[in-house]
Amino acid sequence: MSHPQSLEETFRAALGHLCAFLRFPSISTQADHREDMRSCAMWVDALLRDSGLESRIEETGGHPCVLAKSPRDPSKRTVLIYGHYDVQPPDPLDEWETPPFEPVVRDGRIFARGSTDNKGQILAHILGVAETLRERGALPVNVIFLIEGEEEIGSPSLPGALERLKEELAADVAVVSDTGLVADAYPTLTYALRGIMALEFRVLGPVRDLHSGFFGGAVANPLDAAARLLASLHDAEGRVAVAGFYDAVRPVADWEKKASAALPVSDEDIRALAGVDVLTGEPGYSAMDRIGARPTVDVNGFGGGYQGEGTKTVLPKEAFVKLTCRLVPNQAPREIQRLVSEHLKERCPPGVRLEILPGHHGDPFFMDPDSPFGRAARRALVRAFGREPALLREGGSIPIVADFQKILGIETLLLGLASPDNQAHSPNENFPLANLEWGIRLNKAALEEIARESAD
Amino acid sequence: MSHPQSLEETFRAALGHLCAFLRFPSISTQADHREDMRSCAMWVDALLRDSGLESRIEETGGHPCVLAKSPRDPSKRTVLIYGHYDVQPPDPLDEWETPPFEPVVRDGRIFARGSTDNKGQILAHILGVAETLRERGALPVNVIFLIEGEEEIGSPSLPGALERLKEELAADVAVVSDTGLVADAYPTLTYALRGIMALEFRVLGPVRDLHSGFFGGAVANPLDAAARLLASLHDAEGRVAVAGFYDAVRPVADWEKKASAALPVSDEDIRALAGVDVLTGEPGYSAMDRIGARPTVDVNGFGGGYQGEGTKTVLPKEAFVKLTCRLVPNQAPREIQRLVSEHLKERCPPGVRLEILPGHHGDPFFMDPDSPFGRAARRALVRAFGREPALLREGGSIPIVADFQKILGIETLLLGLASPDNQAHSPNENFPLANLEWGIRLNKAALEEIARESAD
Repeated sequence: MSHPQSLEETFRAALGHLCAFLRFPSISTQADHREDMRSCAMWVDALLRDSGLESRIEETGGHPCVLAKSPRDPSKRTVLIYGHYDVQPPDPLDEWETPPFEPVVRDGRIFARGSTDNKGQILAHILGVAETLRERGALPVNVIFLIEGEEEIGSPSLPGALERLKEELAADVAVVSDTGLVADAYPTLTYALRGIMALEFRVLGPVRDLHSGFFGGAVANPLDAAARLLASLHDAEGRVAVAGFYDAVRPVADWEKKASAALPVSDEDIRALAGVDVLTGEPGYSAMDRIGARPTVDVNGFGGGYQGEGTKTVLPKEAFVKLTCRLVPNQAPREIQRLVSEHLKERCPPGVRLEILPGHHGDPFFMDPDSPFGRAARRALVRAFGREPALLREGGSIPIVADFQKILGIETLLLGLASPDNQAHSPNENFPLANLEWGIRLNKAALEEIARESAD
Repeated sequence: MSHPQSLEETFRAALGHLCAFLRFPSISTQADHREDMRSCAMWVDALLRDSGLESRIEETGGHPCVLAKSPRDPSKRTVLIYGHYDVQPPDPLDEWETPPFEPVVRDGRIFARGSTDNKGQILAHILGVAETLRERGALPVNVIFLIEGEEEIGSPSLPGALERLKEELAADVAVVSDTGLVADAYPTLTYALRGIMALEFRVLGPVRDLHSGFFGGAVANPLDAAARLLASLHDAEGRVAVAGFYDAVRPVADWEKKASAALPVSDEDIRALAGVDVLTGEPGYSAMDRIGARPTVDVNGFGGGYQGEGTKTVLPKEAFVKLTCRLVPNQAPREIQRLVSEHLKERCPPGVRLEILPGHHGDPFFMDPDSPFGRAARRALVRAFGREPALLREGGSIPIVADFQKILGIETLLLGLASPDNQAHSPNENFPLANLEWGIRLNKAALEEIARESAD
């Protein structure tokens, strides 16, 4: 156990840990960062051991997990705290003001890829637990940390690990800080997340790139075909045009409509945050509902033909389109994958071939903010932030929380710590040091409030 | 004057010259090859001087030209031989079997970027003139070589140079070998070329790349908008859907229909050459007519969002589309540029901004194969290849030939030397050594036949 620390020492140590954590380019989707991934996991493992927990690297077949536990006291509730040490690719690199893996502090924020998603947030929980142990010698609950390395690629290895470690991971509730505050400094309980289904399609034309002067007009152009296919996925008003896409969508309840109307965020805020002149999307919904409560088909990348400076008169041999669908209860990712694939296949024009590469997927998530642990979470949020939390349906996806429900049979409390302008997945991602402090406070309050629920 | 050479010596020297020429990465569209461009021009200048002509580097403000002349005999016809030493970018690089700027001979062909377009072809003319001078001490006509470095970017500096050098370039006719044989070893007089109009459009959305989970559904996606705009340029049958696009197209004459029907190339040949299952395009035309006699809108490049391995859930801030239109008489490039720009502007959806970057353009070309020099060219083709030439409308563009007509007031004879499978603009571009020999023979015959026309 460590010696007591002054506040200043605590802050300096926390910042030092965060910087060290952020320096690992732990990009799970890129094969050449495999060793960086393992180094990062080993660093997390060491930090957890140093914090007073029993910790180990858990192999998964993919990138490893870190698994740490406090000594199990059977008279106490057990809390599973989940996070991830992997990050999104940092590109476009030239839009970063400072290099993505060289953290710097400016205006009270730390800038680096992964600072908000998810290194800053999971670190707050580790430091909260370490602080409680240092101050009191014991935790109010049993704690298990499960920190994985494949969240940004859809957690392909984690369900298997959950099955394998089911007994060791037995817990009463899971806590995850990988979502956002609905407004800066505004406490937020996220009670729903969208699911995800990733799919890439490729359009293959001539055997090789052709001279567009010698063949243009007589040979189908894969870029044209890919653009027509992509355009066919939405109608002119912005609805998804895939047959059956909305069939399984569960209607929004009245209490949800009230919670949504009470959110301290307007469409104008979202417009300003995105930096666009006007918001668009599915007719008949507010921007918050389009993002949180409605499913989408998003195109994330489109490429083919000449990408360089100037002109190259080429009729390219292929094009690719990277799609993700965001899904809401009760849409099933595999069914949506089938519907989108069928839609594309039926519309593939003559002269080109279509190749569909299914990607990762995850179920949408939904929990009741009025359940006992839901109420415990809201009390902890009031204690950490000093005000009643907003109840939010968030547009992002954390597929693993659906697996906690299915495999471990436990509910997840989503206690996000990201501010709306932290630019997760974008250049200049950042995390306010204030949010790190709130997070440490929130961890301490949440473990105490969850402990109280055992007496209810 | 050089000493007489054996055939074997001649061949070895020709191959050596071709290899040296091909080793220059003279990519005019890429700024970092500026010095390679100049080195290549200097090499051409030295070769022309060594061949017995007076030669110099002519500055243009852009990449320089090489200008070489035989001593002017006022009793002889004067022939302007035009070519270019610049080449297309070699990408996609990973599809080359051998590096694009390290020429190798396999199966009687030399493989390198620029081998067919245009270094092999212009070299045939230089070597033909050198051979005639070596054998006979004089040429049957006065010869001017004009070899530029900006053909692949639309010859922006050349019209100015033609104006400036008008007197020095005064000639009776121009000869250009930058087109193709309609079939391998089949002599071809190309009497028409398509014009070109290049235009890039960019679709700009949010101020930065956004997380598609946090914004997807409420913020217009530039990739979607770009795909819809691109798709709107054609109707479902393959006609260009831009209002007024076809208005100025001149109908095809009866003798052209006969010439087209007599071509030794079937749609099936073109299908096999492109390596596609089925040809597509504007309804009601053969593939040869779609390529030679009909205008098109071709997309040459499309990019935006995540281009790497795996998935990145980004809502990108921008997308680009690179277009070129191939034009036929009497379409005017500037008017087509206006029509396409208007079409795009009218259809730009809300939530994104459209930026149009006009590119280079060149008029379509048309000459009468029954003119005196047209007949001379056909006789030369019979002498060089031993059979009657095909009369071809070719789909490519050489904007400068329209300028020869407008500025110098002379007709151009297009005596192409590329075989259909030489893959100009594609990976593994190649040029048969047989075509180099035919080209040398054709140059000698053409200069003699043009000289005869002075007596007609």
